[in-house]
Formats: sequence, C-alpha cells, structure tokens
Amino acid sequence: MAKGRSTANDGLRNQIEFFLLTNFPWFWAFVQSNDWLKRQVNKFLINSAIYKAKTRPYPLSTLTDYTSWDSLIDRTYSGRHLPPVNIDPGKLRSIDEIADHLFFRKGDTILSEKSTLLFPYFAQWFTDGFLRTSRDNNLKNTSNHDIDLSPLYGLNRQITEVLRSGKGGKLKSQFINDEEYLPYYFQDGVVKEEFKTINIYTPPELDQEKRDKIFAVGNERGNVQIGYVMMNTLFLREHNRICDVLAENYSTWKDEDDRLFQTARNIVIVLLIKIVIEEYINHIAPYHFKFIADPRSFTNEKWYRQNWMTLEFNLLYRWHSAVPNTVRLDGQDLPFTQTLWNNALLIDRGLGRWFEAASLQPAGRIGMLNTPEFLLETDKRSLQMGRDARLASYNDYREMCKFPRVTDFDQITENEIVQQELKHLYGDVDKIEFYVGLFAEDARENSAVGSLIGRLVGIDAFSQALTNPLLAENIFNETTFSPVGFEIIQTTQCLSDVLHRNIPKSDKNFKVTMTQVKA
Amino acid sequence: MAKGRSTANDGLRNQIEFFLLTNFPWFWAFVQSNDWLKRQVNKFLINSAIYKAKTRPYPLSTLTDYTSWDSLIDRTYSGRHLPPVNIDPGKLRSIDEIADHLFFRKGDTILSEKSTLLFPYFAQWFTDGFLRTSRDNNLKNTSNHDIDLSPLYGLNRQITEVLRSGKGGKLKSQFINDEEYLPYYFQDGVVKEEFKTINIYTPPELDQEKRDKIFAVGNERGNVQIGYVMMNTLFLREHNRICDVLAENYSTWKDEDDRLFQTARNIVIVLLIKIVIEEYINHIAPYHFKFIADPRSFTNEKWYRQNWMTLEFNLLYRWHSAVPNTVRLDGQDLPFTQTLWNNALLIDRGLGRWFEAASLQPAGRIGMLNTPEFLLETDKRSLQMGRDARLASYNDYREMCKFPRVTDFDQITENEIVQQELKHLYGDVDKIEFYVGLFAEDARENSAVGSLIGRLVGIDAFSQALTNPLLAENIFNETTFSPVGFEIIQTTQCLSDVLHRNIPKSDKNFKVTMTQVKA
Repeated sequence: MAKGRSTANDGLRNQIEFFLLTNFPWFWAFVQSNDWLKRQVNKFLINSAIYKAKTRPYPLSTLTDYTSWDSLIDRTYSGRHLPPVNIDPGKLRSIDEIADHLFFRKGDTILSEKSTLLFPYFAQWFTDGFLRTSRDNNLKNTSNHDIDLSPLYGLNRQITEVLRSGKGGKLKSQFINDEEYLPYYFQDGVVKEEFKTINIYTPPELDQEKRDKIFAVGNERGNVQIGYVMMNTLFLREHNRICDVLAENYSTWKDEDDRLFQTARNIVIVLLIKIVIEEYINHIAPYHFKFIADPRSFTNEKWYRQNWMTLEFNLLYRWHSAVPNTVRLDGQDLPFTQTLWNNALLIDRGLGRWFEAASLQPAGRIGMLNTPEFLLETDKRSLQMGRDARLASYNDYREMCKFPRVTDFDQITENEIVQQELKHLYGDVDKIEFYVGLFAEDARENSAVGSLIGRLVGIDAFSQALTNPLLAENIFNETTFSPVGFEIIQTTQCLSDVLHRNIPKSDKNFKVTMTQVKA
Repeated sequence: MAKGRSTANDGLRNQIEFFLLTNFPWFWAFVQSNDWLKRQVNKFLINSAIYKAKTRPYPLSTLTDYTSWDSLIDRTYSGRHLPPVNIDPGKLRSIDEIADHLFFRKGDTILSEKSTLLFPYFAQWFTDGFLRTSRDNNLKNTSNHDIDLSPLYGLNRQITEVLRSGKGGKLKSQFINDEEYLPYYFQDGVVKEEFKTINIYTPPELDQEKRDKIFAVGNERGNVQIGYVMMNTLFLREHNRICDVLAENYSTWKDEDDRLFQTARNIVIVLLIKIVIEEYINHIAPYHFKFIADPRSFTNEKWYRQNWMTLEFNLLYRWHSAVPNTVRLDGQDLPFTQTLWNNALLIDRGLGRWFEAASLQPAGRIGMLNTPEFLLETDKRSLQMGRDARLASYNDYREMCKFPRVTDFDQITENEIVQQELKHLYGDVDKIEFYVGLFAEDARENSAVGSLIGRLVGIDAFSQALTNPLLAENIFNETTFSPVGFEIIQTTQCLSDVLHRNIPKSDKNFKVTMTQVKA
C-alpha cells in the first residue's frame, strides 16, 4: 500500500548525520569503550544537537510581540523560538475537523515498534514538572522551568513543608503490605487537617472507594493515572531510603531533619536527570552512541543559560498517541481509562509488578490517527494553544531546525491517508500548522518520535537538563551531595537500579525497560 | 607622620599587574588606538578581573548553611561568596564601639583626591536598583538582581504602569521653568489618586513645603537626596526624549504606546550600563586602559550566568564616607543634610547647574573615620548585617580574592590611628571583620577605593552588568532597540552626553565629571 516516504527534502547533511549515527555499530562500540573518547564524542554530539537553533535568552516570550523588559524577565509566560505570525483564522479549518480527521484513533491502538508503556508513563510524569500550562492562560507556564521533581515535592516551599514528615529528612509516607506509599489525602471522606493547605484534584464523580485512596503529593493532579503514581511512589521511596543512608553515614546529621531532607532531595533530583539522559533520551534517539550525563563538559557553552521552557517544547511533548486503549495486567486487558484515579490497582499489586507490566507491553505509536477518545479534547486544546500563540508554520520550524522545507505531502509521511487529509485540510504544505506537522511526520527507523520532534527535544531537553544548578561547576561535588550521596549518583543509570533497591527483598528481578525487548 | 603602608603582603602577581596597568601610558594609548586590539585587551582584562573568584551559580545563599534546592533558586535571599563561619559573638567588640572608633567622622570631611561628588551621587542611585536590603530581614534582597533601572521604573509591572502616561510611550512628567521633572506625588497634602497604589516614603517630620515637592517615582525612597533625584530626572527626560525620536522615525509606532515605552526602556537600560562601564568603572579603576562595554566578547564565558547579588557586594558598596559634610552651591556651603528630601533645590536651579555643581567639588574619601554622623547608624546596621550573615573574616576574603593574607596591621593602612584602633579592637589581624577590613584598607594611587573593594567590584559588577539580557547575543541588535535606538546606544558614553541633550538649549556646556579636573 505505502509506496514509502519521499526523502527528497530531508537534507543531505541531516541524512549523512543520521546514517553515521545509526550505522557502524563496531565504531560506536569502540568510541564508547574509551572513557575519554566517550566524553569528547558525548560533548560534541550534545553540542551539535543544541546548536541546531539559536540559544537562550530568547528575544521573545508569549507576553509581547516585541522584546520588552518584562518579556525578558517574566518567566510566568512561556518562551518561544520563533516570533508570532499573522494568519487569518478565518482561513484555517476548524480545530474539531482537524482533530477528528488527523488525530482521533478510530479503532485499535496503533502500536509502537520501539517503546514500552513505561516510556509514556515516565514522559508524562517527568515533563509535568516543567511544562505546566496555566489553566487561566494557555500562554503561561506555572512551573519553575527546572527539573526540580515538583510532581513529588511540590512547586514551592509551602507545599513541600506540608509533605515533609519533619523527622529524619523524610517525606510523609505509609506502609501497606510491607511497601511504602504516599500518605492518603482524605480521611473519612474529608481532607486531612495536615493537608488542608494543599490542593489535590479529584474528579467530582469519583466513587468513595477510589477517593479514599487518593495520595497527598506535590502535583495537584498527581493521582491522574497509574504511571504517574508509580513514578512518585518510586522516588518517594528513594528519597526516604537515602535519608536513612545519610543518617547512618553521617551521625552528626541524625537530628538535622532539614539537612537530611535537603541533601536527599539534591541527590534525588540528580538521579532523575541521570535517568532522563542515560535511559530516557537514549531510548528516544535511534543512535548507537549512548549519551551520558557528564555535566562538567559543558561549563563553557553559550547555551548554558537560565532555563525558559518554550511553548513549542510544551506542544511537542503531547504524546497522547502513546497512550494505548488497554493496559495488560495479570493476563487481562484493562481499559486504560480504568487506570485513571485508581490507586488500588497499584497498592494491591505492589510497585515491582507494575513496573514489569508496563515494561512488557508496547506503548501506542506517537503519530497521527492514534489519539484515544478520552484525550481528543486535549489535542484540540493543543491546536488552540498553537493558534493563540500565533505560531509560525510547521515548515518555518523545519527551517529553524536546519531541515529543508518540505515541498510535498509525501515528504512528511508515507501514510497516504494522512497525506490526503493534510492536503484536504491545508491545501498547501506551507500552511500546515506546527502541532499538526510535528505528529504527521513519520518516525525514522528505530526512533521513538518524528524528526522535527526529535530535533526540538534535543535542543530544549539537553540545554535545560544540563543547566540544572545542581550540576554546576561549583555545586556538583561531594560537599553538596555528601560523599555517599555522590557515590549513589555515580552508580545509578536507570529506573531499574532505583526500583530494585526500593522493593521488598526477594529473588525476583523485575523487567524494567522503556525499549521493547525483541524476542 | 605616616611612615607608609607596608606592601609586604600585597602579593607579587598583584603588584606586577598593578604596575603594568598604571604605568606605560604610551603602551596603553597604542592598545586603545586599534579597535580590534582594544577589544581583545578589554576582554582579557575583564575576564581576569572576574575569574579572580569562583563563578556563579554559588553553592550557598544566606538561606541555609548547606546547599538546598531552595538556596539554589530562591533569589529573595542574598548570594554569598564564602560559607558562614562560627564565631562567638561574645568575643567581638560591640558594634557601637567599632563604629565610633573606626567609622565616625569627628571633624571635617576627609576629601577624596580623585572623585567628585557626582561619583557617590551616581553610585548610590545606580546600586539602589539591585542592592535592596529587605527591611524585614537583612539577609534578603528585594531587588530583581538586574540593572533594570528600577529606581526610575519601579520594581514590577504594577508600579511601572502607575508611572506611565499611557501616551506615546512616555512616563508621566511635568514641566517647570521649561525643564521636565517627575510628577508630584501629593496634591493639597494628600497622595494623588493616580499614585495611591504606590508607596513613596517621606519622613513624617518633613515640612509641608518640601512634602509638596516630593516626586512620584519607581523607588519608594527615590526622593532621599538631591543626587538621587538628579539621576532619576535625567533618565526620565532621556526616556521621554527617546520616545519622541522613535515616534518620529517609525511612523507606524505612533499609536503604539506600549511598543514605544518598551523600546525606549530597552535603550535607556543599555545606556545606563554603558555609562556604568565606560564612565563609572573607569573612574573607580586606576588604570590607563579604559574598559569598554562590548557585550559580544563574553558570550562564551562561564561566568555568564544568572545574576545573584551577594551580601558581600551589598556591604562593600556602602560608601557613606564619600558623603561630605557640606555641598557647595552657588558659592555657599550647604549642610549635606539640607539636600535631603529637598527637591526645590533642584527645581529652582535646573538640572544642568546641579550636575556641574556636583562635578566641581570633591566627594569624601572612601575609608575610615569619615562617616558623617547622620549615616553612622547605617554603618552600625552594616556591621550587624555582616555578623548576622556570619561572614568570614577580612583576611579570608583577601585570600578568596587572591591576595595574600595580611600579617600585620601596617599592611592594611598607613594611617597609624586606624592601625592602633584595629589592634585595640581586634588584637589579631585574622579577627578583623569583613566590613571593617574593606574600609580600613588604603586606596592605592589614583584608585577611588581600597584594593579588596576594587577587586570585589570587578568580580561582581562586570559579571552582573554584562549578563543583562538586553546585551545577550540574540537580543543586542536593531530588532530589539530599532536602528535609531541602536545608534543612540553606540554614540553614548557618559552622563554628559545624556545631560546635554536633555536641558534647555543654550550655549552653556556644563562640566559633568566623576573625576576631579586638576588645575
């Protein structure tokens, strides 16, 4: 059926880069066998990714169409890579029509050939820490623009205080079946006194049984689905475990709740960044070379500037299509919607079994015609957001990212239905909206996302993860993390490492992977 | 009387640097005659100044004794260069005693041999934009940590809005004797309705006549003394003048109040930074080479990180001793205190005559035994602030700044009275407090400040002025400032330039200088 995508406008340089990085496994194995060489190549490749676009500070935010002092300092507005454009909204097809024709998954889940369900589970939770669209104004971002693990710790000190136990540096928690979980938010149907000052959202129609098991946590929507709760539970356990390790090793800190808390948090944030780069980004990229979190390589780079999440980054991360219709659990297929606001599912089975279940089934494929019905409204809001921000076109963003502009629909995707719908809805490739173009593009071989998404992730993710203050030259050291904490950082690479030290002791080794294991 | 200061512990490298920079005028004249060479040397010298200390982000703020996530991101607390130390406060002499013996000016003003009164006038006003000690907690800084001209425009958008006229981008103003001034805050003894939401401080004991002439302006203490009001008046005029220039040159902007305002503000902030580097810092430094504001040279430096004003920087800038007992005006000596909260003095004479008066008389010399009585309480608060922050000693800070530790009191100053008082109050040079050591040091030849102050100014001022977002690679261009605005920036070097285009036309050329003109 498919006659293949035309590669006429992929760009020669891009093709060569891609070819080199996805072939010659013996060469890349050699590069990675030498620590010095690995670091040099790592630095070169990460810099190449970031320097594909202009670096921060950006001249514009979503606040004004021209540069103003406020647009340069007020980070409650999203950053933006390209200036706004003027398009007559009357000439655009309706958002409903676009969502229905291009995004809506009408039948079964189109499955990813690369990613497991653990991948979108992690992605949603992780990005929710810094891509927090304001509900009052979709051009604003309510986050701190940093990887600060705010889904667990909360956005500010007031929330964090409520979640701390005040003893030994630990977060409040409870034990059920010998496993540690977040504390419940409600008691006897009402919010517990201690949590009155934080707001945890629960759908009004939620039944009493599920409501009783809602957890108190940093993010107001932290109970939304089981993957979100898994990640918060895992990092809660790691935080509290590290507190014990620190207290054992540094006896003078025993009664210093705050010092233990702060040091544990410093360590846990860096563990997350390590996993993001060494497991998550390496899963997304199709390369043989595996990136490493090597903060000291980048001290002198001009991209090393204060973080500012862009609206484009916020949109490209909306991987609704990665959400499958069903979740396979204990040999049964559960509708995905039953895993929403349903913490009993986790508590009844324990954390290890859930991580393994998520690692043994495919995610949905990120792309067109694959958004489950319950997320279609969110796609519509995303399209609206792009229009409210008057974003430049898909082709303009390709150009910004050093891809040639596409000149025909068949250069975007090999899927003829999508080609036809794009033609029908836009008429001209130059008119395709950013959000649509992002997800219409076919992923290249062994890549989890399309080319433009991949490139923009490279730009924004690397340049905003490696700038975390905890990784800075005078901070990334044993003074900040303690010697034992620094050792924990050096020896952790992936979620599996963290999981297996935070579940009840047994012989069981759970499978934990974002990449499907081929038979 | 004085037998001279011992240079035994000035440090050989420091002495060579100083010698080279303050000798061989023919060499420095040659360097500055070639634009390329001048930029290279400028880059080298500014980098040398900044890299004398570790660069931001700093591991600690005044929030906690150890690094915490909050201490890394909460800029309401001051930064700090060195960690806190534990000193038994019972072993320190009382602050009253130290202030009285070392700071208090008991007789006439000790005059500076280099600086005019314009220098402290400018310094106080300029630094008040980013060194704003919180009145509730002296470890906190209420500023935005940027050179943003907040003394004129206010700290935030709410204040700025109140001060804007809403027409042609201009700030509210009034004309008196053909000269433009800030609007009055009061009318018939009560705050004008339009200014009700901003707070302008006036001393309760102020008489009605002076109260009537209090101006509405960005800083709540913006009427404190005549130098402060002069600077705000000058930059108000420049802002409104630029609005006219922009409206004339870009006819489509005529009705765009906000665009005109924002573009004018962008230009005026950069004018201020240019004057800071090219007039003010060059006045402070004793070198033949004159620094230039050349932002493009520093894009790749690792000191180019988010600003964070340190508590040490806040303290070293307390140049109370530069304030003379009297101000010479129209051939008469007016007590300095009569120039406080007294705007009629400015309005009656006009801006040009005041700038000239301030340029034709010496400032006080920055150093010991020279704080006027009305500022002695502020010195005591400064000493208290150093103790509250548990600052390391003067000698520790010398070491941090790559000076050898002093081993005898006569290495600090040639003034034997000060040597004896230091010995009497501290016993041991290693126990001298930071704030005391800063001002006890003699200034070196042709320098406006002592060596440690000079070096710390170099570190903090360069590394926080050149990082202004308006100077950044993708922002410092004609798009941000407009071509005509960019031209204004290129052609402005000093306060005199700005003054002479903002006073009534006449043949008079007023003398405007921070450096005394020797007969």
